[in-house]
Amino acid sequence: MAGNTLGSLFRITTWGESHGDAVGVVIDGAPAGIPFTEGHVQAWLDRRKPGGAKTSTSRKEPDMARILSGTFKGKTTGTPISIMVENRDARSSSYADIMDRYRPGHGDITYDKKYGTRDYRGGGRSSARETVGRVAAAALAHQLLKAEGISICAATVELGGVRAEKREYASMTENPYLCPDAEAAQAMDARVDEVRRQGDSLGGVVEIIADGVPAGLGEPVFEKLDAALAGALMGIGAVKGVEIGAGFDAARMTGSENNDPITPDGFSSNNAGGTLAGISSGAPLVMRVAVKPIPSITKAQATINTKGEAVTIETRGRHDVAAIPRVNVVCEAMVALVLADHLLRQKAVTWNR
Amino acid sequence: MAGNTLGSLFRITTWGESHGDAVGVVIDGAPAGIPFTEGHVQAWLDRRKPGGAKTSTSRKEPDMARILSGTFKGKTTGTPISIMVENRDARSSSYADIMDRYRPGHGDITYDKKYGTRDYRGGGRSSARETVGRVAAAALAHQLLKAEGISICAATVELGGVRAEKREYASMTENPYLCPDAEAAQAMDARVDEVRRQGDSLGGVVEIIADGVPAGLGEPVFEKLDAALAGALMGIGAVKGVEIGAGFDAARMTGSENNDPITPDGFSSNNAGGTLAGISSGAPLVMRVAVKPIPSITKAQATINTKGEAVTIETRGRHDVAAIPRVNVVCEAMVALVLADHLLRQKAVTWNR
Amino acid sequence: MAGNTLGSLFRITTWGESHGDAVGVVIDGAPAGIPFTEGHVQAWLDRRKPGGAKTSTSRKEPDMARILSGTFKGKTTGTPISIMVENRDARSSSYADIMDRYRPGHGDITYDKKYGTRDYRGGGRSSARETVGRVAAAALAHQLLKAEGISICAATVELGGVRAEKREYASMTENPYLCPDAEAAQAMDARVDEVRRQGDSLGGVVEIIADGVPAGLGEPVFEKLDAALAGALMGIGAVKGVEIGAGFDAARMTGSENNDPITPDGFSSNNAGGTLAGISSGAPLVMRVAVKPIPSITKAQATINTKGEAVTIETRGRHDVAAIPRVNVVCEAMVALVLADHLLRQKAVTWNR
Amino acid sequence: MAGNTLGSLFRITTWGESHGDAVGVVIDGAPAGIPFTEGHVQAWLDRRKPGGAKTSTSRKEPDMARILSGTFKGKTTGTPISIMVENRDARSSSYADIMDRYRPGHGDITYDKKYGTRDYRGGGRSSARETVGRVAAAALAHQLLKAEGISICAATVELGGVRAEKREYASMTENPYLCPDAEAAQAMDARVDEVRRQGDSLGGVVEIIADGVPAGLGEPVFEKLDAALAGALMGIGAVKGVEIGAGFDAARMTGSENNDPITPDGFSSNNAGGTLAGISSGAPLVMRVAVKPIPSITKAQATINTKGEAVTIETRGRHDVAAIPRVNVVCEAMVALVLADHLLRQKAVTWNR
Repeated sequence: MAGNTLGSLFRITTWGESHGDAVGVVIDGAPAGIPFTEGHVQAWLDRRKPGGAKTSTSRKEPDMARILSGTFKGKTTGTPISIMVENRDARSSSYADIMDRYRPGHGDITYDKKYGTRDYRGGGRSSARETVGRVAAAALAHQLLKAEGISICAATVELGGVRAEKREYASMTENPYLCPDAEAAQAMDARVDEVRRQGDSLGGVVEIIADGVPAGLGEPVFEKLDAALAGALMGIGAVKGVEIGAGFDAARMTGSENNDPITPDGFSSNNAGGTLAGISSGAPLVMRVAVKPIPSITKAQATINTKGEAVTIETRGRHDVAAIPRVNVVCEAMVALVLADHLLRQKAVTWNR
Repeated sequence: MAGNTLGSLFRITTWGESHGDAVGVVIDGAPAGIPFTEGHVQAWLDRRKPGGAKTSTSRKEPDMARILSGTFKGKTTGTPISIMVENRDARSSSYADIMDRYRPGHGDITYDKKYGTRDYRGGGRSSARETVGRVAAAALAHQLLKAEGISICAATVELGGVRAEKREYASMTENPYLCPDAEAAQAMDARVDEVRRQGDSLGGVVEIIADGVPAGLGEPVFEKLDAALAGALMGIGAVKGVEIGAGFDAARMTGSENNDPITPDGFSSNNAGGTLAGISSGAPLVMRVAVKPIPSITKAQATINTKGEAVTIETRGRHDVAAIPRVNVVCEAMVALVLADHLLRQKAVTWNR
Repeated sequence: MAGNTLGSLFRITTWGESHGDAVGVVIDGAPAGIPFTEGHVQAWLDRRKPGGAKTSTSRKEPDMARILSGTFKGKTTGTPISIMVENRDARSSSYADIMDRYRPGHGDITYDKKYGTRDYRGGGRSSARETVGRVAAAALAHQLLKAEGISICAATVELGGVRAEKREYASMTENPYLCPDAEAAQAMDARVDEVRRQGDSLGGVVEIIADGVPAGLGEPVFEKLDAALAGALMGIGAVKGVEIGAGFDAARMTGSENNDPITPDGFSSNNAGGTLAGISSGAPLVMRVAVKPIPSITKAQATINTKGEAVTIETRGRHDVAAIPRVNVVCEAMVALVLADHLLRQKAVTWNR
Repeated sequence: MAGNTLGSLFRITTWGESHGDAVGVVIDGAPAGIPFTEGHVQAWLDRRKPGGAKTSTSRKEPDMARILSGTFKGKTTGTPISIMVENRDARSSSYADIMDRYRPGHGDITYDKKYGTRDYRGGGRSSARETVGRVAAAALAHQLLKAEGISICAATVELGGVRAEKREYASMTENPYLCPDAEAAQAMDARVDEVRRQGDSLGGVVEIIADGVPAGLGEPVFEKLDAALAGALMGIGAVKGVEIGAGFDAARMTGSENNDPITPDGFSSNNAGGTLAGISSGAPLVMRVAVKPIPSITKAQATINTKGEAVTIETRGRHDVAAIPRVNVVCEAMVALVLADHLLRQKAVTWNR
């Protein structure tokens, strides 16, 4: 109930603070016999590592994953899988100045109000560092999905107000923003440079597509597939909005425009984004998330200290200009975790078929 | 796990199909001693009844709620509360023509794929009729919230492309659309008339504000308050997008624009929409949902039958032009249910304070 | 969390007080396509009805079950199944004398301490009447188990100190105690008569055997099959002890005596009672429960009133001499519900086999 | 759902195999501000360590606990607490001979049937080594209970057929069996020596008493306090039976003998064992568990190999003669974990008091 667990049958529990000894995850409910090694985990963790993209912090974490249980001879055994990544580069000293003042846009003030205390060495549990556990667990979810022919891709379709007009996925990895529009990626680059010089930060929009999802996943009425996905994606720290299919544009259409006609060969459009009545339809799942700008900026900001007095704050330390594109792999992770869980749940539904 | 249960400590389970004998809900976990009678339930059910607004179906349901357990002398006892509403006006015969063809935009096809069978008398479980149980249960959640000084309001801020520019809440109930902008309400009226004549339907945007929410609610990291709200709101059949605070607009701001400065008197803006790091901050919660147009339209549409053959369909029966404003009370219900649950959960967190 | 829900994939929630309008249950997670009608429910409810055995109350309840949702054309649809049984014979007036004094051995005092209030018209939620919902739900679980070749039988192996020495199951229904030893049943009969004359009551032991359970059910480590069964059986009001296999006798054996040798044809003994390390082994599940004497007796007893003053109480109303044999069908119900849940859970475990 | 998680508000998830890299636990839901250091954990782990009692294996594990997250300056922060204990003395080689033959009384055969695979280096997940995580987590539960004035004691009241007639708790730690009867302890000693020489093993009975438990804990109807305790205790590998209060003896009493009279000063007996209708009454909780003899014995036993052929097996390796008294601290742990959870749950119930 305490909120650090996701999923029912494929269930993960993450733990760890940004400046503690380690971060990690326990996966419970993975079927036995799935190939899974530290190499699989590492490949995914490397994708979310800082230091890769121009938007990212200069903090360097080797992020070496260690699988402590639940596998034998390179395969899962059905027992819980514990994965740990030590925090080697956590320079707590540099955060001493935020010990008694609340950073705007951060959880400092709300953690204090909720728990009556706070680990003030960095973002603690609300740090993006926590997502290491999610991505590590999703490495296994992706193995499960791959076996069912499902693949997930999170593309940057907007950054700092620059929109991608094209969806040329092959070009995504050729630019540092995972943008499927090479020209837009260049404009994003210019925008990032400009904002970095100003000591400010940027937000954007990530579009996640899951291909190969079979029809029938999702549990009416409260655990609809789109509801589960929306909850999971909104559970990423920087996300402030989630759309499925046409999303907010659907609110401006008429029924005859929005309804996807059904043909013997499938749906002839995908405004629904791959779900009907909360159950996957066999069409690709299409989601978009609004990513807010990183709240840590070097510009001076008005805030209060822990005594409630007005003060100003200039966040130092190493921070990203944008959560994108590091958040993209986290979006993929959340979608993978939800789909893995619902795949297993559907086995119980089709018990007698 | 089967998806018809919402919440952990304040937990509800809804049941019932649109054309079955009855619909209802069981509430488990409500504290003892809360004033709660059939009158409380009825007042909320009356707000979601069809027949009120111009956008609504002509189906008339008395929707008389019966509390079967869990109260004694007008108060809750701590034991589960069962509420039942019989379906008196379900004319199954009029749905005979959709028995073997899938209505576009509906769950007919996905229910068949998930369960291998389907109650084809209307929407079954995916019908808006199911929300009777949610609204009935939320009547009790609202009682709990009222005792804590929390109130929730869902206003129509867009319908058929017409946007409300004002937020004059006092005027909301003076128009049939629950729109806080009287002028916009008139334009909505014209748009509804036009589309109804065309045999088509409309979508819109509902903005939900929760006032008086104390700081500290929400459980990091997967059950953040905004994640729980997003999941709950996306679990409403017609909803295709959810935003918190500035939402998708936050994706276009810089950090210095988006961060809400903190002052000794509170936050000087509310782009965050009342949560920071997934925990309520004490500022009002602000959410918006994208409501898709009702899929049932009288215009002919291309689809397939249960044999997979191409056919056309003209949905008959009694249907709304827009889910708005009936969906507004459902939005309020979902927010109330999530908040009631998190209020109780926070009692365990503050155990030793 | 509030305790009225059992199971994860095959999940039931019971509701209702002994002297309220009705009692009932919602079943969520049953697969679609299982034959299930009010006739199936009724057959099981009839077995737990009062008025049958000599140990039972003279209260007569027709116990007519009504299925309100979740079935279509005599089969389950995959949506929640709501079952209601109205309370027609609840003479509240006869309980007026227990309004302000706590009956020893009953939950009157603990309900007051837990909730700060109590529905004093009979046992409320702690009445055996609540088990109507469990038995109704188990009627569906039994349908599921039957399809897998599993059957469950609860036999009275001890009553009022009289032990059954034989296990002649064919003779069980020929005596009013469901005792598999005809001679012992006669001695039980004499003991019941004697104690009834004294205004007192009796306890006993019920042995439950589940045949045909496949190997592999049960989830290490906290939801072992025997742990789930023990929790479920101890959740029956009158039960004060639970054993699996040799149970307390195993504590007196050596390892070489207690270990069940394994042969190519199976286990050559069954001290384990059908589970090893919490997972079913393929051998029959064998459980025994200790059933305490009914606390409602007509003999005068010392107690206190709601003001805390010493008083005496003589329970009137209609009460059983022993919970046996009505509790037997409840034991079968609990075992069936646990097994149905674990059968579905195992489908997720064997995903890739 | 996969069974490695216990509790709802105070929730733990254990992980790790006997011969893997490490074992551990994640605690989620502990309130902030509780004093908790590695010293607290170590004190409890030392009590379950092998090598202490004469019944125990000669395997020596330093069992040094490492807290990886969730505490700051010696107190809990409200975030998940990860505790890891490395396996330093796991000599896998000595288990090579059990790789392809099933040990009677062990989970080897059922794990293979459930998962289709098995980590054959020792007991894997079904080893008593898994309880390190439980005991480590319970160290925090005990801190919570201590603050509420609750203490728990598990005494050996029977071993190898020798019964303790006295309850002189002060003498418990003066003998190696945690027996509250010094004379019986000596007889147990003789019995242990005898059976060890025979290459056999012993079972016994542990009685657990929880003092200071406030009235009101436990959730009717399926999560009654005694049901939760029974499920938790039966979830210990060696336990085959659980009793509350008079337990199986209650089945032989009449109602007038078994009912505990209530006086202005409390209950004048405690046959109920501290619960009424599944809710704690304020009287001490009294439970007894039947502990089966350790299945690993050096005597030759009949079994089959993984091909299904009849073979004999002589278990080598380092094994205890009896699970007692090492299991006693595990019993205390399980009771502490259940009580901590129910204490927090009761906070939600008493919300408005």
